[in-house]
Amino acid sequence: MHNKKNIPISLVAGAAGFIGSHLCECLLNEGKRVVAVDNFSRGQKRYLERHVNNPDFKLLSADLSQRDDTSYTFEEAAKQGTISEVWHLAANSDISAGVADGDIDLKDTFLTTVEILKAMKLHCVRELYFASSSAIYGDLGDQQLHENIGPLMPISNYGAMKLASEALISASCEAELDKACVFRFPNVVGAPATHGVIYDFIHKLIANPECLEVLGNGTQQKAYLHVSDLISAMIAFRARTDTSKREVINIGPIDTGVTVKWIAEQVVSRINPLAQIKYGKGNKGWIGDVPKFHYSTEKLQSYGWQPKLGSAEAVRSAINEIADQLGQ
Amino acid sequence: MHNKKNIPISLVAGAAGFIGSHLCECLLNEGKRVVAVDNFSRGQKRYLERHVNNPDFKLLSADLSQRDDTSYTFEEAAKQGTISEVWHLAANSDISAGVADGDIDLKDTFLTTVEILKAMKLHCVRELYFASSSAIYGDLGDQQLHENIGPLMPISNYGAMKLASEALISASCEAELDKACVFRFPNVVGAPATHGVIYDFIHKLIANPECLEVLGNGTQQKAYLHVSDLISAMIAFRARTDTSKREVINIGPIDTGVTVKWIAEQVVSRINPLAQIKYGKGNKGWIGDVPKFHYSTEKLQSYGWQPKLGSAEAVRSAINEIADQLGQ
Repeated sequence: MHNKKNIPISLVAGAAGFIGSHLCECLLNEGKRVVAVDNFSRGQKRYLERHVNNPDFKLLSADLSQRDDTSYTFEEAAKQGTISEVWHLAANSDISAGVADGDIDLKDTFLTTVEILKAMKLHCVRELYFASSSAIYGDLGDQQLHENIGPLMPISNYGAMKLASEALISASCEAELDKACVFRFPNVVGAPATHGVIYDFIHKLIANPECLEVLGNGTQQKAYLHVSDLISAMIAFRARTDTSKREVINIGPIDTGVTVKWIAEQVVSRINPLAQIKYGKGNKGWIGDVPKFHYSTEKLQSYGWQPKLGSAEAVRSAINEIADQLGQ
Repeated sequence: MHNKKNIPISLVAGAAGFIGSHLCECLLNEGKRVVAVDNFSRGQKRYLERHVNNPDFKLLSADLSQRDDTSYTFEEAAKQGTISEVWHLAANSDISAGVADGDIDLKDTFLTTVEILKAMKLHCVRELYFASSSAIYGDLGDQQLHENIGPLMPISNYGAMKLASEALISASCEAELDKACVFRFPNVVGAPATHGVIYDFIHKLIANPECLEVLGNGTQQKAYLHVSDLISAMIAFRARTDTSKREVINIGPIDTGVTVKWIAEQVVSRINPLAQIKYGKGNKGWIGDVPKFHYSTEKLQSYGWQPKLGSAEAVRSAINEIADQLGQ
């Protein structure tokens, strides 16, 4: 029998989500042994099914906002080897659902962080990579969203609970963690999508091929990153040895993004070029939506990383991938 | 019978704490009707006993981290009139206790915020004043701690849960609140103290009049505000009509503070001038303690407010008050 204690384990929380499933693939390709965990409230087992026969992959079903489930997860992972790093991507990724019911974000986004940090302390796991969000900045108008600005004023419970998690991770660095990277994600696109503007538009056009109804007037402009670039940025950042114990870093494309109107036009041209587009009023799609922002990725660029795809290319690529996913 | 609906009620959470009890007094002096609530885990009924026969004062015992208790509190308050404002000062004020057991801060500092915001939404209460803390900044070295800097990196669970509360309050402003002021408190001194460096030193000298043992080397330098100035700053800020919906403001003295060594010497000279002072090592008293910081109160000053007492005067005054409180 091999000495399992020598095998480093990457524990991925929220592994069956859109981004989590890509991360698992990447870590397995790196040669890592991966213990993947999800509560399957939004994540899907089928996103990970191609790995189930891989001896380096183990999938657990657990709700990491619950202490017992989190203990079980860490104990099972520890049976596979030594947990060397935790990737915490577990969250309620549906911002508008969290606006309607704040308990979802409290439980799925914040209490998962609370319990993961407790379990890491107990199991002496000292390296954490956390999926935060540009939503922590809120609606700061024309201000450039650098990592060093404040005060942060999230306008959604999602953004609030991501910021709350960042705060608790920072405190844990003082006493327990050796390294914590907080990655502030932009709007990330690609397949398999479960939500988001592209997914919604394609769904709507399938339901009504004649007309695409857009919430808001379409002028909201955002930057989009393709999931492949997001994963590559995180992996590149993890490999650096010149980072500090606590790092907070915006990940995103270099451009200022594309408008909802442009996305609607691209979706229509891919799915049904004859469909009409009908716009609503105002520059917000829903409460918690930030109409426009200037997301600075200067810090990330200063580390020499650049995305392969800009916002427009990422969106076009994602439209094709999601259309394929939805059988279009 | 009077129409109670016309009577505006100030609801004070954490009313039986050191700062809460001073706030209640101030609001009653303003002519407000006050509903005071505390879980009495650290707060003391005796701090409020001089008001118990005041018909404008009602004291409730409730744990605002619990939904049922919070519902009860708001329902009782609503029987007294219309809740026009909530002052949320409920928190675990003992930073080092929260370092030892993170659940205390989660429950007493953050979940109270969660439940208070929920109840405010339900009862259509739209004005919130929140006691945050300079601890949300963490240990940023020589950086000036303005409200507009980031990333915020609290080093204690206390600071983390205060920042988490700020985040959630910001999100609530989007959907429900008309006005939220987040006051970032400095080190506040005065009586009746329950913890803090002055209280600890006097207690130690009572136990051992020969020698005062100081954690750390005494070089930690902090700014201190007297509780009377803190209350006056909040009341002055509340009265302004030129503030925005979400306000975050540092409250503190203008000076850069005094050292622990200076405080130790003042305490010794007041309690027992013959006592020796023995220092420990390092410039941190305990994990979660920030050795030195430069707390900017420029924003507050730009509103024309200035404290009556500087750090040294505030500490000297508090030493006398706490010595009196402890019968010295």
